[in-house]
Amino acid sequence: MPSPPQSLVVLDVEGVLTPEVWIAVAERTGIDFLRRTTRDEPDYDVLMKGRIAALDAAGITMTTIMEVVEGLMPLPGARRFLEELQSRVPVVLLSDTFEQFGRPLMAELGWPLLLCHTLVVEGDRLADYRLRVNDQKARSVEAFRALNYRVVAVGDSYNDMTMLAAADSGILFRAPDNVIAEHPQYPCCTAYEDLLDLIDGCILNF
Amino acid sequence: MPSPPQSLVVLDVEGVLTPEVWIAVAERTGIDFLRRTTRDEPDYDVLMKGRIAALDAAGITMTTIMEVVEGLMPLPGARRFLEELQSRVPVVLLSDTFEQFGRPLMAELGWPLLLCHTLVVEGDRLADYRLRVNDQKARSVEAFRALNYRVVAVGDSYNDMTMLAAADSGILFRAPDNVIAEHPQYPCCTAYEDLLDLIDGCILNF
Repeated sequence: MPSPPQSLVVLDVEGVLTPEVWIAVAERTGIDFLRRTTRDEPDYDVLMKGRIAALDAAGITMTTIMEVVEGLMPLPGARRFLEELQSRVPVVLLSDTFEQFGRPLMAELGWPLLLCHTLVVEGDRLADYRLRVNDQKARSVEAFRALNYRVVAVGDSYNDMTMLAAADSGILFRAPDNVIAEHPQYPCCTAYEDLLDLIDGCILNF
Repeated sequence: MPSPPQSLVVLDVEGVLTPEVWIAVAERTGIDFLRRTTRDEPDYDVLMKGRIAALDAAGITMTTIMEVVEGLMPLPGARRFLEELQSRVPVVLLSDTFEQFGRPLMAELGWPLLLCHTLVVEGDRLADYRLRVNDQKARSVEAFRALNYRVVAVGDSYNDMTMLAAADSGILFRAPDNVIAEHPQYPCCTAYEDLLDLIDGCILNF
């Protein structure tokens, strides 16, 4: 009897387990520019440089930004979902957020492994950002597959699509209608219970 | 001002965070053969096949083995140490144990990410084992380095040495005297507080 292969699940974070950090900063500071996302500005570097310029123009310090981030909570049910999933299969969180933003939210989620990027902070000013590696979500999935894991990837937006494509199975969670329409190959759902079922189904098919 | 590189810590599990599972099974079943380790039998396949034959000869079922494993607790202070470390840096547990043995211990440790192997169970019999990948500890370190993390590796025994060699920095924790003597290049300690300090020192030097 062959033994089933070993599986690993990678999850996007913002929109899947936590609120969108930049939206929260926009609401707290009243800077509408910070509501722009990669959907409005597909060039990530232009977007981030614009965010930093907008924060500078308004005199928003890193202390203020971190107060917003530290006030955020995971989405309702997220921690329970994550713990249930971790009891079944190894889980890695893959996000294009930054370690400084991720840390308070990971504390609320019981310190799951989060692979992400980092901000450059000078004094109390958000000065710049550093991508640890380009397309890190897809590259991380490739790395876990090379380590002989079958990978299920869960995401919600355009910047997750290379990750889903690199995985053995992909699932859309609370994705916008256009993302769902453009990627009919992926099952989709909006409730954590259904997500657990979809992940189980993927793993059983490996 | 250059931003510091992003760091990640990999930890061996048995002897570092938890007791040795096979020693516990040996004590519970009275099968002395199960006390043999890779120090007594360097060929891992011969060792594992011997363990399985010894369990079969004594009629020890998977249910009994799992009762032993589920009765194990992390080493004193291990969970607190792990949570403190996770609040500072991403942490991955690398072990040559098996998912079935790891799961109850990971529950006690708050579900950190554990990369390991799997047992083949037929009915209630431990029938075989499957290494997910050869030399997985070193290969995992190489994968995280390729994803642009600087890696600190912590281990205690011979099967950790390729992992320590692959990492940017290696630390010996509660290692036997011969391992320490043969690897003078690595700092060593026996208390979790000192281990936190050594890890911090490695990261600051990156």
